[in-house]
Amino acid sequence: MSKLLAVGTVAFDAIETPFGKTDKILGGSGTFVGLAASTFGIETGVVSVVGGDFPDNYLTMMNSKGINTDGVEVIKEGKTFFWSGKYHNDMNSRDTLVTELNVLENFKPVVPESFKDAGIVMLGNLHPLTQASVLDQMTERPKLVVLDTMNFWMDIALEDLHTVLKRVDVITINDEEARQLSGEYSLVNAAKKIHEMGPKYVVIKKGEHGALLFSEGKMFFAPALPLAEVFDPTGAGDTFAGGFCGYLAKTENISFENMKNAIIYGSNLASFCVEKFGTERMQELTEDEIRVRLQAFRELTQFDINIS
Amino acid sequence: MSKLLAVGTVAFDAIETPFGKTDKILGGSGTFVGLAASTFGIETGVVSVVGGDFPDNYLTMMNSKGINTDGVEVIKEGKTFFWSGKYHNDMNSRDTLVTELNVLENFKPVVPESFKDAGIVMLGNLHPLTQASVLDQMTERPKLVVLDTMNFWMDIALEDLHTVLKRVDVITINDEEARQLSGEYSLVNAAKKIHEMGPKYVVIKKGEHGALLFSEGKMFFAPALPLAEVFDPTGAGDTFAGGFCGYLAKTENISFENMKNAIIYGSNLASFCVEKFGTERMQELTEDEIRVRLQAFRELTQFDINIS
Repeated sequence: MSKLLAVGTVAFDAIETPFGKTDKILGGSGTFVGLAASTFGIETGVVSVVGGDFPDNYLTMMNSKGINTDGVEVIKEGKTFFWSGKYHNDMNSRDTLVTELNVLENFKPVVPESFKDAGIVMLGNLHPLTQASVLDQMTERPKLVVLDTMNFWMDIALEDLHTVLKRVDVITINDEEARQLSGEYSLVNAAKKIHEMGPKYVVIKKGEHGALLFSEGKMFFAPALPLAEVFDPTGAGDTFAGGFCGYLAKTENISFENMKNAIIYGSNLASFCVEKFGTERMQELTEDEIRVRLQAFRELTQFDINIS
Repeated sequence: MSKLLAVGTVAFDAIETPFGKTDKILGGSGTFVGLAASTFGIETGVVSVVGGDFPDNYLTMMNSKGINTDGVEVIKEGKTFFWSGKYHNDMNSRDTLVTELNVLENFKPVVPESFKDAGIVMLGNLHPLTQASVLDQMTERPKLVVLDTMNFWMDIALEDLHTVLKRVDVITINDEEARQLSGEYSLVNAAKKIHEMGPKYVVIKKGEHGALLFSEGKMFFAPALPLAEVFDPTGAGDTFAGGFCGYLAKTENISFENMKNAIIYGSNLASFCVEKFGTERMQELTEDEIRVRLQAFRELTQFDINIS
């Protein structure tokens, strides 16, 4: 088993969906990645920053799941990053109502000594220079560096993004962002161009339409599990990434064939995440539930055609 | 092997895509279904109507593929159904420029004697009463009745649609139409409601996002093959349906497990259809090409996770 280091936000979210709305609840990419990875029983460390307003019991909950939060800096006089959004009826689009960066504005991630040798590093959606600073702190080149980014960084820090991409093995990105980064409409062509920017593996997330893995002419696709009800999509992409990294950290096999399984594990965990508000469903998730739903994924996708 | 009877349009299309535009070329749902089904070497009969302006060599081409066109009525003094459309850059949306119903307006399908005992009947996207009139002509209840429809008929002939749906085993429908017909946004819930209207099997087509098969709590999903270039999506849905029906006619096994394979065969053939304008790619398609791409579908979707 490898250690997994996840850098990202630990935050407050306030969410409105057609099913209801929440006050400030626990959110953030680092939180969702950590919770998803924790289902594999690996050593996961989260690097992030919160303010003095962040409840201790959220960190206690994460620790109880085996997530190391030594890298979560607490700035007593600061306020925690806060995001608020409202989902439309189709659950695929949302309006951001509030973004308060707060302590995130001057976030300088510090990797705890005990995670400087992590085999897998997940660089959450942050400024490319912040992402690079994490890699600079590692004692040796991690076995696998996974990076998530978004259109915002392409707009304001494209050159820095290109620089850090050269140090990355896997990029996870959504379809529209892949098109923006590559200038190609076809996702096959987009993946090819992004591959040339550095990452050997390109994972394109399509939300309810599943996820694609590309590498050197090879492709793999995992659908999202069709659900009767998507309650709150917040964190699904990060949960997917956490499941992907967690499975690879557990199995220590970064072949394309094993990455297929990692994609399925990621999709599987994401299908739970959306069933309740925020992290609620991930906090209560059991091994049995995960196993039963993996079987559903198998039945959903596996077929038996003899090709002679 | 069962005989396959396909009722649908045989028509002229004029298509504009970002890659170019065509004059009037061969199109129509019956044509695409027939061409797809013909790859299985089964007996396929097409029932349709054309005008005096329809070139003999189109019918000759279909016959050369083993498609029986005895049921294609030629109205010498009439004009063939004509559709013209323009695709947007994303290839997922299009504007209809021209629709001339012509001989289709008073189409009364007549099933040839030799196909009144067909085991599988594919009712193309026509008025529900026209679809029902085909079933009335069969000497016995076919083993499998597949129906395609669209929002237009839900708008103007919903009651007739509900009546014919009670006589149908499989409905193929796109995602937006499934939502309209059921009043449910979630496709899982939509399929459940449509199932209650009659069809035991509900196939929901999502274009570039693949296709879902639902039956009595079971689900199967096939992605569309990601392509570097989609040249012309016209006929892809009908080609999918033709591949689905053709495979079932060839294997004579209408279990859910075998329908999974049929969905994959349909998706496989549709992936060729979009590579050239109109029916061009389907006309030249070889068995070897089909086999090679089935292997690509396998690599795209199959994984190997031990669930203990």
